[in-house]
Amino acid sequence: MIAYKDMSREQLLEEKAALEKEFEAVKAKGIKLDMSRGKPGKDQLDLSDGLMDMLSSDSSFVSENGMDCRNYGILTGIPEVKKLMADFSETTPDNVIVYGNSSLNIMFDTIAHAMMFGVCGGTPWVKQDAVKFLCPVPGYDRHFKVTQHFGIEMINIPMTPNGPDMDLVEQYVNNDPAVKGIWCVPKYSNPQGYTYSDETVRRFAALKPAASDFRIFWDNAYAIHHLYEESDRQDQLLEILSECEKAGNPDMVYKFGSTSKVTYPGAGVAVLASSPANIKDMQATMTIQTIGHDKINQLRHVRFFEGDMANMNAHMMRHAAILRPKFEAVEAALEASLGGLEIGEWTKPNGGYFISFEALPGCAKAIVAKAAEAGVTMTNAGATYPYGKDPQDTNIRIAPSFPTPEELTRAAEIFVLSVKLVSIDKYLGA
Amino acid sequence: MIAYKDMSREQLLEEKAALEKEFEAVKAKGIKLDMSRGKPGKDQLDLSDGLMDMLSSDSSFVSENGMDCRNYGILTGIPEVKKLMADFSETTPDNVIVYGNSSLNIMFDTIAHAMMFGVCGGTPWVKQDAVKFLCPVPGYDRHFKVTQHFGIEMINIPMTPNGPDMDLVEQYVNNDPAVKGIWCVPKYSNPQGYTYSDETVRRFAALKPAASDFRIFWDNAYAIHHLYEESDRQDQLLEILSECEKAGNPDMVYKFGSTSKVTYPGAGVAVLASSPANIKDMQATMTIQTIGHDKINQLRHVRFFEGDMANMNAHMMRHAAILRPKFEAVEAALEASLGGLEIGEWTKPNGGYFISFEALPGCAKAIVAKAAEAGVTMTNAGATYPYGKDPQDTNIRIAPSFPTPEELTRAAEIFVLSVKLVSIDKYLGA
Repeated sequence: MIAYKDMSREQLLEEKAALEKEFEAVKAKGIKLDMSRGKPGKDQLDLSDGLMDMLSSDSSFVSENGMDCRNYGILTGIPEVKKLMADFSETTPDNVIVYGNSSLNIMFDTIAHAMMFGVCGGTPWVKQDAVKFLCPVPGYDRHFKVTQHFGIEMINIPMTPNGPDMDLVEQYVNNDPAVKGIWCVPKYSNPQGYTYSDETVRRFAALKPAASDFRIFWDNAYAIHHLYEESDRQDQLLEILSECEKAGNPDMVYKFGSTSKVTYPGAGVAVLASSPANIKDMQATMTIQTIGHDKINQLRHVRFFEGDMANMNAHMMRHAAILRPKFEAVEAALEASLGGLEIGEWTKPNGGYFISFEALPGCAKAIVAKAAEAGVTMTNAGATYPYGKDPQDTNIRIAPSFPTPEELTRAAEIFVLSVKLVSIDKYLGA
Repeated sequence: MIAYKDMSREQLLEEKAALEKEFEAVKAKGIKLDMSRGKPGKDQLDLSDGLMDMLSSDSSFVSENGMDCRNYGILTGIPEVKKLMADFSETTPDNVIVYGNSSLNIMFDTIAHAMMFGVCGGTPWVKQDAVKFLCPVPGYDRHFKVTQHFGIEMINIPMTPNGPDMDLVEQYVNNDPAVKGIWCVPKYSNPQGYTYSDETVRRFAALKPAASDFRIFWDNAYAIHHLYEESDRQDQLLEILSECEKAGNPDMVYKFGSTSKVTYPGAGVAVLASSPANIKDMQATMTIQTIGHDKINQLRHVRFFEGDMANMNAHMMRHAAILRPKFEAVEAALEASLGGLEIGEWTKPNGGYFISFEALPGCAKAIVAKAAEAGVTMTNAGATYPYGKDPQDTNIRIAPSFPTPEELTRAAEIFVLSVKLVSIDKYLGA
């Protein structure tokens, strides 16, 4: 393999001509593949169909505390689901609220609450001069869209394999009272699949925020979403709530999670875990907003897992068995076709839903457009950055979960061809 | 029967002594009954248990448009549930968004949207000098709590059997640009069970609001919740969206509804029906807030009713068969024990969940406290008014749905004793 940067103009032109032929050939097949979102595949959904057998007209609908789950009542979740989701969140039931089907909705509502009513009795953010959020990049597009929607100024913080650049985080948080929050996907981060190191978590816990209403938005979306069975290939994340408590910052974190990628996306249960003060603060608004979330679906989930995290973890290994070959197929295709060409780098995560690809500067948008030409839809280039603006135009999020393995092989083929063609054009100065 | 007001002091004292004995006797039974909320009874919940048999692990989870309802996708509801809930809302599928389990949550979010982002591109309410809501009274306590939570000023509008005092509504809405909304429960109103007359609906539709972002919050919570089968005892409500359109005010109404008192409270589906402009405006925020609501539960509901409003209406008649005797038992007890005493008046609704009781001025709080002494929990007196302040202290909301008929007889007995005792004390000047 010769790296493209070391090829002569003639070599590049020759390579380009060959690649264009290949590209036209795959394009002619008229494929249509969606690799844009972290959607589970059909076989993954099938894993949770047993959920639908947990309740029938003959079932008891009575929760542990004697409540008829079919009726109104119970704001923060039935006791057994609070226990299960507290285990999931590595905390105690008193510290959790179990919501409806969407953790994104909790995050939105948490920010809406802070904007309108303030955090724990503080001045509503909407009445403060400036509100800023730190955004580790690349990151999750929907986080950035929430903060953008509320007019919150977003500041890019570079990611490293150990988490966000903590020097920068400390500098902002500890000095600027307008910095009210930071978006974190601390485990198997979206899109890179990085897990924050123990040191990173401890530095988070030890922050001395200039703003008393600063909060860490800890979206533990992939808390148990390993790709491998071997313990040395399962990332471990230090538990943030207890670290913050130890560091004297008990109220600094909102921790979010859901079973969206455990059972059914859109029909799971979502959870907020936080300190008693934050839980009480959120409940004050929640009790006005709703009479309560779907307790029947909570009951269904508890019964499916027999209330036991060990069963949920075992369930996740069945997801892993389906997802792992897909990740490995993409990684192998990237290695086989791009290895040594020095036109891109990619992550090899132990869990989560994404592979992050770093193209040559200025190439990401063109690569995504090129792949779309041949029928492969990727996440928009730039989406992994606030305001959709990737300053170097390098990052592409690859979501291998939804296509079948066969589709994935074709999609990977189209993707690497697109990378090569766009990179050659860059070197040719086209 | 001699009216209490016509009794001599001696007669009153004699009556009081007898009633006190009776009261001590029922109190000694140590009853504990909750008549505070409009909760369906257990036998009503049983009616919808078939819902739990609609989906099993063998089912197809594919919606009409080919979507796998188990996965992410579809923001505003699957096509078949949009059709069903559009029929429910007497409009077309394009004009509805089907949400999660709670219409209260939609109302809260609609006001939060207006506060933060403005209505259809208008100035956010939070940035306007004053925001006021008209509140027909007595009304639904949870409506008033939402507006209070957002710091919206509430103005009492007296209710009549034909709906709110429309002279007053027109005067406020058409002249004061700070008046941004009005809470309405137009059919079988909470708590009186009144249904707005055609003239009232037409006067609503013909409003000329001083504020372009004025909206009617039309909570059609009891749209199909009749107590009687006979058509002449089923109230009819003119459809507001089409009336507004005819009157040149197409964007003036948000219409809310849910199946909370059709299937399961807390595990039903909720709906917003409005104009295309309002739907588009709400979607702009919703698309940031969530990836979508529980499509599995939407599918379950569609299958239970076979997508047909006729089946939902037939289902409601089964609720009516259970509720009707409860309402009639309370009405009979009130008539038998209080008729002719001139110490209270009550409504005799054709539908909904409540009977409204008007005590002598200054007596409502004391009556509710007295009943509580003997183990009967009523809705807090005052709750049916903004800020919990019933200016005359007369209104009590009776919720006959949850207790069994036997419990209801006892509760009614305790209630009338409480009314009599408190009223006598009033006349005695105690």
